[in-house]
Amino acid sequence: MLAAWMARCGINARIVDKRGTKIYAGQADGLQMRSLEIFDSFGFADRAWKEANHMIEMCMWNPGQDGVIRRSDRVPDVPVGLSRFQQIVLHQGRIERFFLDHIKKHSEDRIRVERGVLPEVMSFSEEEFNDHSIDTYPITVKLRHLTEEEAMPEQSKASEVSDGLFRSNLAADDTDDLIRQSVGKEGTAEIVRAKYVVGCDGAHSWTRKQLGFELEGEPTDFIWGVLDIIPITDFPDIRMRCAIHSASSGSMMVIPRENKLVRLYIQLTEIKPDASGRADRSKITPATIIAAAQKIIAPYKLTYEYCDWWTAYQIGQRVGTNFDYSSRVFLAGDAVHTHSPKAGQGMNVSMQDAYNLGWKLGLVIRGIARPEILKTYQSERRRVAQDLIAFDHKFSRLFSGRPAKDVLDEEGVSMEAFRDAFVKGNMFASGLSVDYGSSMLIAKEGSSIDQGDGTDVSSSYTKTRVVGRQELATNIKLGMRFPNYKVLNQSDARPWHLQENLRSDGRFRIIVFAGDVLFSTQKSKLEAFCDLLSSSQFLAPYLHRNIAMLTVHSSKRTETELLRDFPEVLHPFDTRTGWDYDSVFVDDESYHEGFGDAYNGYGVDKEAGCVVITRPDQYVGFIGSLNEQGWEGVEGYFKGVLMS
Amino acid sequence: MLAAWMARCGINARIVDKRGTKIYAGQADGLQMRSLEIFDSFGFADRAWKEANHMIEMCMWNPGQDGVIRRSDRVPDVPVGLSRFQQIVLHQGRIERFFLDHIKKHSEDRIRVERGVLPEVMSFSEEEFNDHSIDTYPITVKLRHLTEEEAMPEQSKASEVSDGLFRSNLAADDTDDLIRQSVGKEGTAEIVRAKYVVGCDGAHSWTRKQLGFELEGEPTDFIWGVLDIIPITDFPDIRMRCAIHSASSGSMMVIPRENKLVRLYIQLTEIKPDASGRADRSKITPATIIAAAQKIIAPYKLTYEYCDWWTAYQIGQRVGTNFDYSSRVFLAGDAVHTHSPKAGQGMNVSMQDAYNLGWKLGLVIRGIARPEILKTYQSERRRVAQDLIAFDHKFSRLFSGRPAKDVLDEEGVSMEAFRDAFVKGNMFASGLSVDYGSSMLIAKEGSSIDQGDGTDVSSSYTKTRVVGRQELATNIKLGMRFPNYKVLNQSDARPWHLQENLRSDGRFRIIVFAGDVLFSTQKSKLEAFCDLLSSSQFLAPYLHRNIAMLTVHSSKRTETELLRDFPEVLHPFDTRTGWDYDSVFVDDESYHEGFGDAYNGYGVDKEAGCVVITRPDQYVGFIGSLNEQGWEGVEGYFKGVLMS
Repeated sequence: MLAAWMARCGINARIVDKRGTKIYAGQADGLQMRSLEIFDSFGFADRAWKEANHMIEMCMWNPGQDGVIRRSDRVPDVPVGLSRFQQIVLHQGRIERFFLDHIKKHSEDRIRVERGVLPEVMSFSEEEFNDHSIDTYPITVKLRHLTEEEAMPEQSKASEVSDGLFRSNLAADDTDDLIRQSVGKEGTAEIVRAKYVVGCDGAHSWTRKQLGFELEGEPTDFIWGVLDIIPITDFPDIRMRCAIHSASSGSMMVIPRENKLVRLYIQLTEIKPDASGRADRSKITPATIIAAAQKIIAPYKLTYEYCDWWTAYQIGQRVGTNFDYSSRVFLAGDAVHTHSPKAGQGMNVSMQDAYNLGWKLGLVIRGIARPEILKTYQSERRRVAQDLIAFDHKFSRLFSGRPAKDVLDEEGVSMEAFRDAFVKGNMFASGLSVDYGSSMLIAKEGSSIDQGDGTDVSSSYTKTRVVGRQELATNIKLGMRFPNYKVLNQSDARPWHLQENLRSDGRFRIIVFAGDVLFSTQKSKLEAFCDLLSSSQFLAPYLHRNIAMLTVHSSKRTETELLRDFPEVLHPFDTRTGWDYDSVFVDDESYHEGFGDAYNGYGVDKEAGCVVITRPDQYVGFIGSLNEQGWEGVEGYFKGVLMS
Repeated sequence: MLAAWMARCGINARIVDKRGTKIYAGQADGLQMRSLEIFDSFGFADRAWKEANHMIEMCMWNPGQDGVIRRSDRVPDVPVGLSRFQQIVLHQGRIERFFLDHIKKHSEDRIRVERGVLPEVMSFSEEEFNDHSIDTYPITVKLRHLTEEEAMPEQSKASEVSDGLFRSNLAADDTDDLIRQSVGKEGTAEIVRAKYVVGCDGAHSWTRKQLGFELEGEPTDFIWGVLDIIPITDFPDIRMRCAIHSASSGSMMVIPRENKLVRLYIQLTEIKPDASGRADRSKITPATIIAAAQKIIAPYKLTYEYCDWWTAYQIGQRVGTNFDYSSRVFLAGDAVHTHSPKAGQGMNVSMQDAYNLGWKLGLVIRGIARPEILKTYQSERRRVAQDLIAFDHKFSRLFSGRPAKDVLDEEGVSMEAFRDAFVKGNMFASGLSVDYGSSMLIAKEGSSIDQGDGTDVSSSYTKTRVVGRQELATNIKLGMRFPNYKVLNQSDARPWHLQENLRSDGRFRIIVFAGDVLFSTQKSKLEAFCDLLSSSQFLAPYLHRNIAMLTVHSSKRTETELLRDFPEVLHPFDTRTGWDYDSVFVDDESYHEGFGDAYNGYGVDKEAGCVVITRPDQYVGFIGSLNEQGWEGVEGYFKGVLMS
């Protein structure tokens, strides 16, 4: 994800991975709605959507009075109406493939994942840390290129399953990656001098250890096994997501996957941690895991002929003390938060860390944004990690606990409580409830210290603090991702999800809700606002190049015309390619896809409109009125963020 | 298209093209709804849909009383509600790319387009023609591998436009094709012995000439130019499809394309055919074409900096006397029908010729289907070509004619007549009105001779003629493509377009509308029908392998279960991969995508259901009741089509 941003922002970056190949089986698989929106902003959500299994319904199975499991509930797997996507499941290897293709395309093959490469020493010239504007490289990292033998992960050497089926899992477009890319350098060392380093190097993060930062938290006694199999079973809901609580044999989660696979998370009640607090992994095999599953799912039968991958883990929740070292070295993903996998959060929250950091680094390195915005990374993402860990703590205990026999059984878990926690947790698990706190990037009321992780990220560049007017767009929340409604392109009547036009191209966006331009007073207001915009000396170097314009009006499409009714700054002219026909949209009825009713959905007044600023990651930074006061807010917002 | 079918059917086929490379610019661009449905059945409609420009609205511009053009009408570009797709525009080179990728994947790189290869001599052992079941190769073709110089089309050598911009048009995934694939054989000859030959070799078809078949029809006096440009203009509808009739300077059609391109079809009223009936092409240049366009579109301005491609043509309508020589050599596409390009039919009808022929050839070659089905190719597709030519004759004259000044101007074309012809023609132009006549493959009333092109294609293999019961599924028309409604997968509640499950995998389908299986009488009917199906000795070798099962029931999803309520033949068990969870669907409400209401849409009784047979190309072959009589129809249909 970070390399994708570097490719999109045109940054000279390197990405090294100690593994010898990409992932081909197992690991993460769940993609939440927000991750799909992000993939779509890069242009490859369709590939994931097409290949993945779609999870539509969650079924809860619990013991009845007779102790035999039966289906007690069906609920939609994700809240209805939140996003144009739903939760899908696809193995991590394919997701890596989409990123690799994207990085290749947008960096013109300049950025490649260098595999079998390990960092060994990192040192700093701290005196050069503070000045981000000069062209210095204050970080030195020594890399070692591993031999073929060193680069093979232990598991793929040891496990029969991965060995035997390795090639069978390959999609056609993966075969090139079987060949190591840095052939010829094996066993040699290399010195790299860098402006910034980001450690996305997992729970045992080497980078975190170099910085002396900690993961805080403790493991629990709950041990779980994971099987990726093609199940042979008479269990009726094997293609549904299921939470199964057996009376006394533990719990199981069923996650149906692509290509007939099903992932089973199976509680191993007979395996206990030893005195050190750690379970003996050598006792865990696919045979012990399926045996545990068979007890939980009885009286239904469950076997398999084909196993794609398996593993086991001990539940624990840990979060990093620091995500950021002097705005020069950053940590992301499992390097700063680990938890149980069953809520499908790990890969998503980790990708979203890098998604939050990438554009900020890109804009600072290119001299566009003030280096202070880098501090918002820890403020925004450590707070998310803390919320995630609290969620997972609660959810995993409810799921691993024995079901209560009756209302007097206080040690057992109430199945009603579990159901309620699941339904409430769904909003969090969708990734759409993220609400970044007040900062130089989010112009909202309140203390940036209280609303983040404690870091001070308020701006000090504007005389008066800019605060957006939430009441002008009641469903476009300051600090949250810009929501989606359908609109039509003014010039060709094609329906679009407005969100599709908020691409991850490194640009902020000024979204002008122009209101009803057939009213002459409103048209004059729009023209006056656009005059201020196009005559701003501060914004001139950034307009269109780093700040895109997007307009949505509420007049009838057939009564308005692009060139006649909308100022040029909203659809600029190019001498070679003519007018821009892709930036002005209308909230009107389509021929084939209904009426988006976007103004009502967004909670924006149809006559007066408003103006909204979105960050390059689609989070809402500012809302103002379409007049001089609103314009001052827009200019003030950017003065606090961009270099003068 | 034909090679795609050969790949899907596992046939040992070769495809040779005298051109040295694939197409990179110009040529055809319009994709009708039916073509997109076909692409989707192969699995790549999404690629076309994503890259293409979508045409939503057609605007008509005509002279007012003052002689100045003004917009007189807006109509939806395609009829609303006919298909889940609409008409899109994308250059032919990308469409070739999708086919090349598909052929590569499904033939495991066995079938490649051999470029720069020309047929020189074709001869037959006619005495071996009749017996299709024995392994003989009665056709001999001598091929010559061209030199690099010979394989370059004249146009790309001569034209500055193609030369200068050749590489700039390449998509990333096209670069491999710049390298000739049969390098090393240049200048050599080769003898190929074949069972069948299909000439898809264009209006000047070498294959057609070898067979002595004719194209019948005459050119008109209408000369048109074509420009693919990025226009610089103040014309307000430049991103709409437009038909512009000027008062006295001729007509123009505007076709907005991908990547800011617009294709302009421009009538060249100042160029006339000479005594031979042919226009002098040397007088036509991009400069003369844009000058003609500027006169038509005045008072609006129109210029360009970038031209991607240009050409000119003389309108004529011609159709082949024969599409088939002894069921051994076939002709398809421009080799048997040529007409004007403005209705966006050429590439579509041509691909659909090959789509009709491919699976028939594939099944005959593999010994599955009776060779007699090959005769339905000419019967079905020559009739379509005749209809196309009649449509184009009418439409192109209305479009090329001078607009009437008033109701008394009888020589002029009435703009109301043009509008009505366009709206009516839209149904034809969508490709969805194709209605194949009665034959061994289409069990409907009437004479196969009358309903096709005159060829006798009735079956002689069953004692009593099988005729489907149209009244059991009033909106699933015998002879037409199976229409689309949304249904849910019974096992995982995911919504699907039912059409998405009619994949082009070479299989017929028995679609069981099971009705309401919660009624015990209906459930018994279903079980009795399935018993007949699974105990048929005739169908046993074909079931599932060549005839897929697809079930749609009308009970509540949550009150039914796959294993409990549906006989095994509808979701067969495999010892390695377990039960089939992807063949039983339900007409019920979804969480996120509404209610398809498929039974009502298809006009099928919700309690009693019915049974439908679709051919491998999704055309409806038979409709019967879910009882013994219906079963006899199903078995009778297949006895007339498949080898015993």
